[in-house]
Amino acid sequence: MFDLIAFDADDTLWHSEDQYVGTQDRFKQLLAPYHSAEWIDRKLFATEMRNLRLFGYGIKGVMLSMIETAIEVTQGKIPAEDIDAILRFGRVMIEHPVELIDGAREVIDTLRARDHEVWLITKGDLFDQESKIARSGLTELFHRIEIVSEKDEGTYRRLLERHGVEPEEFAMVGNSIRSDILPVTAIGAAAFHVPYHVTWALEVVSGEVSAEFVTLSSLRELPSALTW
Amino acid sequence: MFDLIAFDADDTLWHSEDQYVGTQDRFKQLLAPYHSAEWIDRKLFATEMRNLRLFGYGIKGVMLSMIETAIEVTQGKIPAEDIDAILRFGRVMIEHPVELIDGAREVIDTLRARDHEVWLITKGDLFDQESKIARSGLTELFHRIEIVSEKDEGTYRRLLERHGVEPEEFAMVGNSIRSDILPVTAIGAAAFHVPYHVTWALEVVSGEVSAEFVTLSSLRELPSALTW
Repeated sequence: MFDLIAFDADDTLWHSEDQYVGTQDRFKQLLAPYHSAEWIDRKLFATEMRNLRLFGYGIKGVMLSMIETAIEVTQGKIPAEDIDAILRFGRVMIEHPVELIDGAREVIDTLRARDHEVWLITKGDLFDQESKIARSGLTELFHRIEIVSEKDEGTYRRLLERHGVEPEEFAMVGNSIRSDILPVTAIGAAAFHVPYHVTWALEVVSGEVSAEFVTLSSLRELPSALTW
Repeated sequence: MFDLIAFDADDTLWHSEDQYVGTQDRFKQLLAPYHSAEWIDRKLFATEMRNLRLFGYGIKGVMLSMIETAIEVTQGKIPAEDIDAILRFGRVMIEHPVELIDGAREVIDTLRARDHEVWLITKGDLFDQESKIARSGLTELFHRIEIVSEKDEGTYRRLLERHGVEPEEFAMVGNSIRSDILPVTAIGAAAFHVPYHVTWALEVVSGEVSAEFVTLSSLRELPSALTW
Protein backbone atom coordinates (compact mmCIF):
# COMPACT_ATOMS: atom_id res chain seq x y z
CA MET A 1 0.00 0.00 0.00
CA PHE A 2 2.63 2.54 1.03
CA ASP A 3 5.60 2.53 -1.34
CA LEU A 4 7.53 4.92 0.84
CA ILE A 5 7.90 4.77 4.62
CA ALA A 6 9.78 7.60 6.31
CA PHE A 7 11.07 7.52 9.87
CA ASP A 8 11.72 10.34 12.25
CA ALA A 9 15.09 9.92 14.03
CA ASP A 10 15.32 11.35 17.58
CA ASP A 11 13.13 9.36 20.00
CA THR A 12 11.79 7.26 17.13
CA LEU A 13 14.88 5.31 16.02
CA TRP A 14 17.22 6.29 18.83
CA HIS A 15 16.99 7.77 22.31
CA SER A 16 17.44 11.53 22.52
CA GLU A 17 15.09 13.38 24.87
CA ASP A 18 16.35 11.28 27.80
CA GLN A 19 19.71 12.97 27.43
CA TYR A 20 18.20 16.44 27.33
CA VAL A 21 16.25 15.62 30.49
CA GLY A 22 19.43 14.33 32.18
CA THR A 23 21.31 17.47 31.19
CA GLN A 24 18.53 19.68 32.52
CA ASP A 25 18.65 17.79 35.80
CA ARG A 26 22.37 18.52 36.10
CA PHE A 27 21.68 22.15 35.20
CA LYS A 28 19.05 22.43 37.93
CA GLN A 29 21.41 20.88 40.48
CA LEU A 30 24.07 23.40 39.53
CA LEU A 31 21.67 26.27 40.15
CA ALA A 32 20.01 24.74 43.23
CA PRO A 33 21.80 27.21 45.57
CA TYR A 34 19.97 30.06 43.81
CA HIS A 35 16.48 28.85 42.88
CA SER A 36 13.98 25.99 42.95
CA ALA A 37 14.15 23.37 40.21
CA GLU A 38 10.69 24.32 39.04
CA TRP A 39 11.57 28.00 38.66
CA ILE A 40 14.75 27.18 36.73
CA ASP A 41 12.81 24.83 34.45
CA ARG A 42 10.33 27.55 33.66
CA LYS A 43 13.05 30.16 33.04
CA LEU A 44 15.08 27.80 30.83
CA PHE A 45 12.07 26.92 28.73
CA ALA A 46 11.23 30.62 28.30
CA THR A 47 14.81 31.34 27.19
CA GLU A 48 14.77 28.42 24.75
CA MET A 49 11.52 29.60 23.22
CA ARG A 50 12.81 33.15 22.90
CA ASN A 51 16.02 31.89 21.25
CA LEU A 52 14.44 29.37 18.90
CA ARG A 53 14.12 31.88 16.09
CA LEU A 54 17.83 32.73 16.50
CA PHE A 55 19.35 29.31 17.17
CA GLY A 56 16.94 26.71 15.76
CA TYR A 57 16.85 23.23 17.27
CA GLY A 58 19.82 21.33 18.63
CA ILE A 59 22.32 20.93 21.41
CA LYS A 60 24.37 24.06 20.72
CA GLY A 61 21.30 26.26 21.03
CA VAL A 62 20.37 24.51 24.27
CA MET A 63 23.90 25.08 25.66
CA LEU A 64 23.71 28.79 24.82
CA SER A 65 20.23 29.06 26.37
CA MET A 66 21.43 27.31 29.53
CA ILE A 67 24.32 29.77 29.88
CA GLU A 68 22.00 32.73 29.30
CA THR A 69 19.48 31.41 31.84
CA ALA A 70 22.20 30.74 34.43
CA ILE A 71 23.44 34.32 34.17
CA GLU A 72 19.90 35.67 34.33
CA VAL A 73 18.59 33.68 37.29
CA THR A 74 21.74 34.30 39.36
CA GLN A 75 21.68 38.00 38.42
CA GLY A 76 25.24 37.63 37.12
CA LYS A 77 26.54 35.99 40.30
CA ILE A 78 27.30 32.61 38.71
CA PRO A 79 31.06 31.95 38.71
CA ALA A 80 32.86 31.14 35.44
CA GLU A 81 33.62 27.63 36.64
CA ASP A 82 29.90 26.87 36.75
CA ILE A 83 29.50 28.15 33.19
CA ASP A 84 32.40 25.87 32.29
CA ALA A 85 30.37 23.02 33.83
CA ILE A 86 27.46 23.88 31.50
CA LEU A 87 29.84 23.67 28.53
CA ARG A 88 30.87 20.24 29.79
CA PHE A 89 27.21 19.10 30.07
CA GLY A 90 26.83 19.98 26.40
CA ARG A 91 29.97 18.16 25.32
CA VAL A 92 28.82 15.06 27.19
CA MET A 93 25.51 15.18 25.29
CA ILE A 94 27.22 15.65 21.94
CA GLU A 95 29.63 12.78 22.54
CA HIS A 96 27.02 10.48 24.02
CA PRO A 97 26.75 7.18 22.13
CA VAL A 98 23.68 6.77 19.96
CA GLU A 99 21.42 4.15 21.56
CA LEU A 100 18.92 2.62 19.18
CA ILE A 101 15.29 2.16 20.15
CA ASP A 102 14.46 -1.51 20.60
CA GLY A 103 13.77 -3.09 17.21
CA ALA A 104 14.85 -0.12 15.07
CA ARG A 105 17.22 -2.01 12.78
CA GLU A 106 15.05 -5.12 12.47
CA VAL A 107 11.95 -3.11 11.56
CA ILE A 108 13.78 -1.23 8.81
CA ASP A 109 15.26 -4.50 7.53
CA THR A 110 11.78 -6.02 7.39
CA LEU A 111 10.38 -3.08 5.42
CA ARG A 112 13.27 -3.17 2.96
CA ALA A 113 12.82 -6.91 2.48
CA ARG A 114 9.22 -6.13 1.53
CA ASP A 115 10.45 -3.66 -1.10
CA HIS A 116 9.33 -0.53 0.68
CA GLU A 117 11.45 2.51 -0.01
CA VAL A 118 12.72 3.75 3.38
CA TRP A 119 13.62 7.35 4.17
CA LEU A 120 14.81 9.19 7.25
CA ILE A 121 13.31 12.65 7.75
CA THR A 122 14.69 14.45 10.77
CA LYS A 123 14.72 18.04 11.89
CA GLY A 124 17.38 19.88 13.79
CA ASP A 125 20.97 20.92 13.61
CA LEU A 126 22.59 19.57 10.40
CA PHE A 127 25.90 18.74 12.05
CA ASP A 128 24.34 17.08 15.14
CA GLN A 129 21.98 15.04 13.02
CA GLU A 130 24.59 13.88 10.50
CA SER A 131 26.85 12.88 13.36
CA LYS A 132 24.08 10.89 15.08
CA ILE A 133 23.00 9.21 11.85
CA ALA A 134 26.58 8.15 11.16
CA ARG A 135 27.02 6.82 14.70
CA SER A 136 23.67 4.99 14.60
CA GLY A 137 25.10 2.54 12.06
CA LEU A 138 21.82 2.77 10.10
CA THR A 139 22.96 5.09 7.29
CA GLU A 140 23.17 2.39 4.63
CA LEU A 141 19.61 1.24 5.31
CA PHE A 142 17.98 4.44 4.06
CA HIS A 143 17.27 5.16 0.43
CA ARG A 144 17.17 8.85 1.30
CA ILE A 145 18.08 10.98 4.29
CA GLU A 146 16.58 14.44 4.64
CA ILE A 147 17.62 16.82 7.41
CA VAL A 148 15.27 19.78 7.57
CA SER A 149 15.02 22.79 9.84
CA GLU A 150 11.28 22.43 10.49
CA LYS A 151 8.76 19.65 9.86
CA ASP A 152 5.59 21.35 8.74
CA GLU A 153 3.10 20.80 5.94
CA GLY A 154 5.19 22.79 3.47
CA THR A 155 8.29 20.71 4.20
CA TYR A 156 6.52 17.39 3.65
CA ARG A 157 4.73 18.65 0.54
CA ARG A 158 7.99 19.90 -1.01
CA LEU A 159 9.81 16.64 -0.24
CA LEU A 160 7.12 14.50 -1.84
CA GLU A 161 6.73 16.78 -4.86
CA ARG A 162 10.46 16.94 -5.47
CA HIS A 163 10.63 13.16 -5.68
CA GLY A 164 7.35 12.56 -7.48
CA VAL A 165 5.69 10.76 -4.58
CA GLU A 166 1.91 10.97 -4.14
CA PRO A 167 0.65 11.50 -0.55
CA GLU A 168 -1.31 8.21 -0.67
CA GLU A 169 1.93 6.32 -1.31
CA PHE A 170 3.61 7.84 1.75
CA ALA A 171 3.56 6.95 5.46
CA MET A 172 5.48 8.74 8.20
CA VAL A 173 6.53 7.07 11.47
CA GLY A 174 7.46 9.18 14.47
CA ASN A 175 7.03 10.08 18.11
CA SER A 176 5.93 13.69 17.74
CA ILE A 177 2.28 14.48 17.08
CA ARG A 178 3.26 18.02 16.16
CA SER A 179 6.09 17.23 13.73
CA ASP A 180 5.53 13.69 12.49
CA ILE A 181 1.77 13.22 12.53
CA LEU A 182 -0.39 16.34 12.08
CA PRO A 183 1.43 17.93 9.11
CA VAL A 184 1.56 14.53 7.39
CA THR A 185 -2.13 13.71 7.74
CA ALA A 186 -2.89 17.32 6.72
CA ILE A 187 -1.38 16.74 3.28
CA GLY A 188 -3.33 13.50 2.86
CA ALA A 189 -0.60 11.01 3.74
CA ALA A 190 -0.64 8.37 6.49
CA ALA A 191 1.06 8.62 9.87
CA PHE A 192 2.00 6.06 12.51
CA HIS A 193 2.56 7.46 15.98
CA VAL A 194 5.01 5.63 18.25
CA PRO A 195 5.04 7.63 21.50
CA TYR A 196 8.26 8.02 23.42
CA HIS A 197 8.14 7.98 27.20
CA VAL A 198 9.05 11.68 27.42
CA THR A 199 8.15 14.50 25.03
CA TRP A 200 9.85 17.87 24.81
CA ALA A 201 7.40 20.55 25.93
CA LEU A 202 7.53 22.29 22.55
CA GLU A 203 6.42 19.14 20.77
CA VAL A 204 3.39 18.70 22.98
CA VAL A 205 0.16 19.54 21.19
CA SER A 206 -2.47 21.02 23.46
CA GLY A 207 -6.17 20.86 22.90
CA GLU A 208 -8.07 18.36 20.87
CA VAL A 209 -6.31 16.72 17.96
CA SER A 210 -8.45 15.99 14.93
CA ALA A 211 -6.50 13.77 12.63
CA GLU A 212 -6.70 10.12 11.68
CA PHE A 213 -3.58 8.21 12.49
CA VAL A 214 -2.53 4.92 14.05
CA THR A 215 -0.80 4.78 17.43
CA LEU A 216 1.55 1.87 18.08
CA SER A 217 2.80 0.88 21.49
CA SER A 218 6.22 0.02 20.07
CA LEU A 219 8.20 0.32 16.87
CA ARG A 220 8.18 -3.47 16.55
CA GLU A 221 4.44 -3.33 15.77
CA LEU A 222 4.98 -1.31 12.61
CA PRO A 223 5.47 -4.11 10.05
CA SER A 224 2.21 -5.83 10.96
CA ALA A 225 0.35 -2.51 11.24
CA LEU A 226 1.40 -1.71 7.68
CA THR A 227 -0.09 -4.91 6.27
CA TRP A 228 -3.38 -4.42 8.05
CA MET B 1 29.48 24.86 -22.11
CA PHE B 2 28.44 24.52 -18.45
CA ASP B 3 24.80 23.63 -18.03
CA LEU B 4 24.97 24.02 -14.29
CA ILE B 5 26.63 26.83 -12.36
CA ALA B 6 26.71 26.56 -8.57
CA PHE B 7 27.53 29.39 -6.20
CA ASP B 8 28.97 29.30 -2.74
CA ALA B 9 27.09 31.64 -0.38
CA ASP B 10 29.13 33.21 2.47
CA ASP B 11 31.70 35.69 1.09
CA THR B 12 30.74 34.77 -2.46
CA LEU B 13 27.16 36.10 -2.72
CA TRP B 14 27.02 37.96 0.57
CA HIS B 15 29.42 39.32 3.18
CA SER B 16 30.10 37.03 6.13
CA GLU B 17 33.71 36.82 7.30
CA ASP B 18 33.74 40.59 7.94
CA GLN B 19 31.23 40.02 10.72
CA TYR B 20 33.27 37.23 12.29
CA VAL B 21 36.32 39.50 12.22
CA GLY B 22 34.32 42.32 13.83
CA THR B 23 33.05 39.98 16.54
CA GLN B 24 36.55 38.71 17.25
CA ASP B 25 37.73 42.30 17.59
CA ARG B 26 35.07 42.94 20.21
CA PHE B 27 36.03 39.69 21.93
CA LYS B 28 39.70 40.73 22.07
CA GLN B 29 38.74 44.13 23.49
CA LEU B 30 36.69 42.42 26.18
CA LEU B 31 39.70 40.31 27.21
CA ALA B 32 42.29 43.06 26.76
CA PRO B 33 42.70 43.45 30.57
CA TYR B 34 43.95 39.85 30.70
CA HIS B 35 46.00 39.15 27.56
CA SER B 36 47.34 40.55 24.31
CA ALA B 37 45.10 40.46 21.24
CA GLU B 38 47.53 38.14 19.49
CA TRP B 39 47.51 35.61 22.32
CA ILE B 40 43.70 35.61 22.49
CA ASP B 41 43.49 35.15 18.71
CA ARG B 42 45.73 32.13 18.91
CA LYS B 43 43.85 30.60 21.84
CA LEU B 44 40.45 31.18 20.22
CA PHE B 45 41.57 29.58 16.98
CA ALA B 46 42.93 26.56 18.88
CA THR B 47 39.60 26.19 20.74
CA GLU B 48 37.63 26.49 17.51
CA MET B 49 39.76 23.81 15.84
CA ARG B 50 39.39 21.50 18.83
CA ASN B 51 35.61 22.01 18.87
CA LEU B 52 35.02 21.72 15.14
CA ARG B 53 34.41 17.99 15.35
CA LEU B 54 31.82 18.61 18.10
CA PHE B 55 30.11 21.75 16.84
CA GLY B 56 30.68 21.93 13.09
CA TYR B 57 30.69 25.31 11.36
CA GLY B 58 28.54 28.26 12.28
CA ILE B 59 27.88 31.09 14.67
CA LYS B 60 26.63 29.00 17.61
CA GLY B 61 29.83 26.96 17.67
CA VAL B 62 31.86 30.18 17.54
CA MET B 63 29.88 31.61 20.48
CA LEU B 64 30.50 28.48 22.54
CA SER B 65 34.21 28.50 21.64
CA MET B 66 34.49 32.17 22.61
CA ILE B 67 32.94 31.47 26.01
CA GLU B 68 35.25 28.49 26.55
CA THR B 69 38.31 30.52 25.54
CA ALA B 70 37.31 33.43 27.77
CA ILE B 71 37.06 31.14 30.79
CA GLU B 72 40.36 29.46 29.92
CA VAL B 73 42.50 32.55 29.29
CA THR B 74 41.20 34.33 32.41
CA GLN B 75 41.64 31.17 34.49
CA GLY B 76 38.00 31.39 35.48
CA LYS B 77 38.20 35.03 36.59
CA ILE B 78 35.92 36.41 33.89
CA PRO B 79 32.71 37.78 35.43
CA ALA B 80 29.33 36.52 34.21
CA GLU B 81 28.47 39.93 32.78
CA ASP B 82 31.36 39.57 30.32
CA ILE B 83 30.10 36.16 29.26
CA ASP B 84 26.73 37.78 28.78
CA ALA B 85 28.48 40.28 26.49
CA ILE B 86 29.80 37.37 24.40
CA LEU B 87 26.24 36.05 24.06
CA ARG B 88 25.24 39.51 22.85
CA PHE B 89 28.06 39.54 20.26
CA GLY B 90 26.65 36.31 18.87
CA ARG B 91 23.09 37.58 18.75
CA VAL B 92 24.25 40.69 16.90
CA MET B 93 25.95 38.45 14.30
CA ILE B 94 22.88 36.25 13.90
CA GLU B 95 20.55 39.21 13.48
CA HIS B 96 22.88 41.16 11.21
CA PRO B 97 21.27 42.01 7.86
CA VAL B 98 22.51 40.01 4.90
CA GLU B 99 24.53 42.33 2.67
CA LEU B 100 24.90 41.11 -0.89
CA ILE B 101 28.25 41.19 -2.65
CA ASP B 102 28.24 43.77 -5.45
CA GLY B 103 26.63 42.31 -8.57
CA ALA B 104 25.34 39.09 -6.97
CA ARG B 105 21.74 39.37 -8.15
CA GLU B 106 22.59 40.73 -11.62
CA VAL B 107 25.11 37.96 -12.30
CA ILE B 108 22.62 35.24 -11.36
CA ASP B 109 19.93 36.94 -13.48
CA THR B 110 22.31 36.99 -16.44
CA LEU B 111 23.12 33.29 -16.10
CA ARG B 112 19.46 32.36 -15.84
CA ALA B 113 18.65 34.45 -18.92
CA ARG B 114 21.26 32.36 -20.75
CA ASP B 115 19.48 29.17 -19.66
CA HIS B 116 22.08 28.01 -17.20
CA GLU B 117 20.74 26.02 -14.28
CA VAL B 118 21.82 27.84 -11.11
CA TRP B 119 22.41 26.17 -7.74
CA LEU B 120 23.51 27.37 -4.33
CA ILE B 121 25.86 25.00 -2.47
CA THR B 122 26.79 26.23 0.97
CA LYS B 123 28.26 24.59 4.02
CA GLY B 124 27.56 25.30 7.65
CA ASP B 125 24.80 25.37 10.18
CA LEU B 126 21.46 24.48 8.53
CA PHE B 127 19.45 27.00 10.52
CA ASP B 128 21.96 29.88 10.05
CA GLN B 129 22.24 29.20 6.35
CA GLU B 130 18.49 28.90 5.71
CA SER B 131 17.93 32.11 7.60
CA LYS B 132 20.59 33.95 5.59
CA ILE B 133 19.34 32.59 2.28
CA ALA B 134 15.80 33.73 3.11
CA ARG B 135 17.02 37.19 4.13
CA SER B 136 19.22 37.51 1.03
CA GLY B 137 16.11 37.75 -1.13
CA LEU B 138 17.78 35.44 -3.68
CA THR B 139 15.94 32.19 -2.84
CA GLU B 140 13.69 32.23 -5.89
CA LEU B 141 16.64 32.59 -8.26
CA PHE B 142 18.09 29.15 -7.50
CA HIS B 143 16.92 25.96 -9.15
CA ARG B 144 18.37 24.05 -6.23
CA ILE B 145 19.74 24.91 -2.79
CA GLU B 146 22.02 22.44 -1.02
CA ILE B 147 23.22 23.02 2.54
CA VAL B 148 25.97 20.54 3.41
CA SER B 149 28.12 20.02 6.48
CA GLU B 150 31.39 19.78 4.54
CA LYS B 151 32.41 20.60 0.97
CA ASP B 152 34.82 17.90 -0.07
CA GLU B 153 35.21 15.71 -3.16
CA GLY B 154 32.71 13.16 -1.85
CA THR B 155 30.06 15.83 -1.29
CA TYR B 156 30.37 17.27 -4.80
CA ARG B 157 30.50 13.81 -6.38
CA ARG B 158 27.34 12.71 -4.53
CA LEU B 159 25.47 15.89 -5.45
CA LEU B 160 26.25 15.56 -9.16
CA GLU B 161 25.54 11.82 -9.26
CA ARG B 162 22.23 12.21 -7.45
CA HIS B 163 21.02 14.66 -10.09
CA GLY B 164 22.60 13.00 -13.12
CA VAL B 165 25.03 15.84 -13.85
CA GLU B 166 28.38 15.05 -15.49
CA PRO B 167 31.42 16.88 -14.05
CA GLU B 168 32.17 18.52 -17.41
CA GLU B 169 28.70 20.15 -17.32
CA PHE B 170 29.35 21.69 -13.89
CA ALA B 171 31.13 24.84 -12.74
CA MET B 172 31.48 26.02 -9.14
CA VAL B 173 31.96 29.67 -8.15
CA GLY B 174 33.33 30.56 -4.73
CA ASN B 175 35.82 32.38 -2.58
CA SER B 176 37.41 29.40 -0.82
CA ILE B 177 40.23 27.54 -2.54
CA ARG B 178 39.81 24.72 -0.02
CA SER B 179 36.03 24.27 -0.23
CA ASP B 180 34.94 25.67 -3.60
CA ILE B 181 37.90 25.07 -5.89
CA LEU B 182 40.19 22.12 -5.09
CA PRO B 183 37.53 19.42 -4.46
CA VAL B 184 35.66 20.57 -7.59
CA THR B 185 38.65 20.44 -9.95
CA ALA B 186 39.62 17.11 -8.33
CA ILE B 187 36.41 15.50 -9.61
CA GLY B 188 36.96 16.92 -13.10
CA ALA B 189 34.60 19.88 -12.94
CA ALA B 190 35.43 23.56 -13.46
CA ALA B 191 35.90 26.16 -10.75
CA PHE B 192 35.92 29.94 -10.74
CA HIS B 193 37.66 31.56 -7.80
CA VAL B 194 36.43 34.98 -6.65
CA PRO B 195 38.64 35.89 -3.67
CA TYR B 196 37.12 37.75 -0.75
CA HIS B 197 39.23 40.36 0.98
CA VAL B 198 39.55 38.25 4.15
CA THR B 199 39.71 34.47 4.46
CA TRP B 200 39.05 32.44 7.59
CA ALA B 201 42.30 30.81 8.69
CA LEU B 202 40.85 27.33 8.33
CA GLU B 203 40.00 27.95 4.69
CA VAL B 204 43.52 29.05 3.83
CA VAL B 205 45.38 26.42 1.82
CA SER B 206 49.08 26.36 2.59
CA GLY B 207 51.76 25.14 0.24
CA GLU B 208 51.58 24.97 -3.51
CA VAL B 209 48.19 24.47 -5.11
CA SER B 210 48.14 22.32 -8.20
CA ALA B 211 44.77 22.71 -9.83
CA GLU B 212 43.55 24.49 -12.92
CA PHE B 213 40.99 27.12 -12.21
CA VAL B 214 40.14 30.67 -13.18
CA THR B 215 40.51 33.53 -10.71
CA LEU B 216 38.24 36.53 -11.17
CA SER B 217 38.78 39.88 -9.53
CA SER B 218 35.05 40.32 -9.01
CA LEU B 219 31.81 38.39 -9.31
CA ARG B 220 30.73 40.72 -12.12
CA GLU B 221 33.37 39.17 -14.38
CA LEU B 222 31.74 35.75 -14.22
CA PRO B 223 29.30 35.98 -17.16
CA SER B 224 32.01 36.95 -19.63
CA ALA B 225 34.48 34.45 -18.16
CA LEU B 226 31.94 31.68 -18.80
CA THR B 227 31.62 32.51 -22.50
CA TRP B 228 35.34 32.62 -23.02
